Amino acid sequence: MGLVSVEDIWAAADRIDGLVVRTPLLECEQLSRELGRQVLIKAENLQHTGSFKPRGALNAMLSWQAEGRLGEVAVSFSAGNHAAAVAYAGQRLGVRAVVAMPRDAISSKVANVRRYGGEIVPTDDLMGTCSELAERHGCPPLYPFDLPEIIAGQGIAGLEICADEPAPDLVIVPVGGGGLIGGIATAVKALAPRCRVVGVESEVSNALGAALAAGEVVRLPGAPTIADGLAAPFAGTCTLAQAQAYVDDMVTVPEHAIAEAWPAMVAATRLLLEPSAAVGLAALRTGAIEVPEDGTVVLVASGGNADLGKLSATPT
Amino acid sequence: MGLVSVEDIWAAADRIDGLVVRTPLLECEQLSRELGRQVLIKAENLQHTGSFKPRGALNAMLSWQAEGRLGEVAVSFSAGNHAAAVAYAGQRLGVRAVVAMPRDAISSKVANVRRYGGEIVPTDDLMGTCSELAERHGCPPLYPFDLPEIIAGQGIAGLEICADEPAPDLVIVPVGGGGLIGGIATAVKALAPRCRVVGVESEVSNALGAALAAGEVVRLPGAPTIADGLAAPFAGTCTLAQAQAYVDDMVTVPEHAIAEAWPAMVAATRLLLEPSAAVGLAALRTGAIEVPEDGTVVLVASGGNADLGKLSATPT
Repeated sequence: MGLVSVEDIWAAADRIDGLVVRTPLLECEQLSRELGRQVLIKAENLQHTGSFKPRGALNAMLSWQAEGRLGEVAVSFSAGNHAAAVAYAGQRLGVRAVVAMPRDAISSKVANVRRYGGEIVPTDDLMGTCSELAERHGCPPLYPFDLPEIIAGQGIAGLEICADEPAPDLVIVPVGGGGLIGGIATAVKALAPRCRVVGVESEVSNALGAALAAGEVVRLPGAPTIADGLAAPFAGTCTLAQAQAYVDDMVTVPEHAIAEAWPAMVAATRLLLEPSAAVGLAALRTGAIEVPEDGTVVLVASGGNADLGKLSATPT
Repeated sequence: MGLVSVEDIWAAADRIDGLVVRTPLLECEQLSRELGRQVLIKAENLQHTGSFKPRGALNAMLSWQAEGRLGEVAVSFSAGNHAAAVAYAGQRLGVRAVVAMPRDAISSKVANVRRYGGEIVPTDDLMGTCSELAERHGCPPLYPFDLPEIIAGQGIAGLEICADEPAPDLVIVPVGGGGLIGGIATAVKALAPRCRVVGVESEVSNALGAALAAGEVVRLPGAPTIADGLAAPFAGTCTLAQAQAYVDDMVTVPEHAIAEAWPAMVAATRLLLEPSAAVGLAALRTGAIEVPEDGTVVLVASGGNADLGKLSATPT
């Protein structure tokens, strides 16, 4: 199977039109002042279910439906945001959603999945449980990132960024399994070829960076990270190939830098964000990504499903 | 002096064009589901400085500048959001901002005023200190709500609501001194005459509702409210007249209802909001405002300058 193309992303945008929010690209005056560059926030926390994930889930399920491959049940694994997206998409399409989630998934994400009627199977072995569920229900797993349809769906966010800001200079994307950055980088490189696209991972959970360095899929032991939404146990073959083709650079940030950037970014943007959404600011603040000498920086704020109590317990 | 007209608001929009954010009107799927109606959020927390206030402050200062009435110092009084707006506008126009604020102003609002170089004079007597400052600096006070230029500036939010949703059925506005609702009601009644515009106050701080009931300006003793941004000691003659002409109804909500609605609205919208911005949801949940049988409800989210620690300390 070849790489996802910008044409695939355009087709995905047509396919899910009207089912998702056209999220705004928001000027953040306070971060622009801090960093000395215009900083724009792609507010994916304002997407239905509170993260970008319904873009990919809806595109995959509608594509499978058109191909006669969508069953009565959709199974997957997730830290919570993809689970909510599958539940949301399932509710729209009349499909039951059954998703393997970590036993320590954060409470607002558990509540969010249940809000859309999703069924949660708590587990210590996300992939193993997902495979069992797929076998039991006789349906292909709707993986959270390593499917071309998922990558194409997430890429719609990149089309929207370039529609609102035709010449961004740097787009910074939080990275878990690599579906979001794969899609966004493909769209941005097609529409704004001079723009750099850089991914950010926690240094304790760098599946895509490790795979790019090794030139092959790498399985990580899976250390806990405050950026729970980015704790992918591996980047898959599709997302690795997509990143090799289109992503300029990958960096990591330490946990304490995410913990500090999180409430600061919430306060500066007046957006409720989850820690995963703040890794880009952490990378700029630590110097892992150099602030460009001029031009516009886009921070992709991937999601907003955070426990309020944890938010205020972190240093500000 | 006559009422502020929609023509005044259009002129204000031209005057401050480019200096303020065109804030989005966001569909909130979760609140729409809860209330059984389409709920749209006018996200004024995403305005520069984190509240709607720069619209009025900039319109007043630029109007005064054109009339040769703007001095080297702008003085006012404020719970914090208008102070930050005057500081922000002052920084753009080269004017020093000196503002009387309560001694117990919340810390994020104090920090916000200082971020824009504003000078804070802590006081127990907002009006008295503001008058002293005006005399000392030889300039007219730039009152937070009771000026036609302020009302016209805040009304721009109403033009934007109707541009994004041409036929809203109910617009719900948090009310302190009445500048925001006066402006918004004027704009909405001109552009969508069948839409109802309803204001919400805390039951311990109902300056505009009391003035409408009495038919004249009423001074309140000034009880503390969790909705600190709405703690106006009175509604002025301009805002009272504007509300008499254009506001359909005023309701109050108890403090505990605001305290409950606040974190719920933050979680549902994924917007960082201050308690004042949640009084509309509190009114719908308590039945103070009846959910309409059909149509679209707009909640004006007036600001997002909240202390994160207080947010998570409230019941969810």
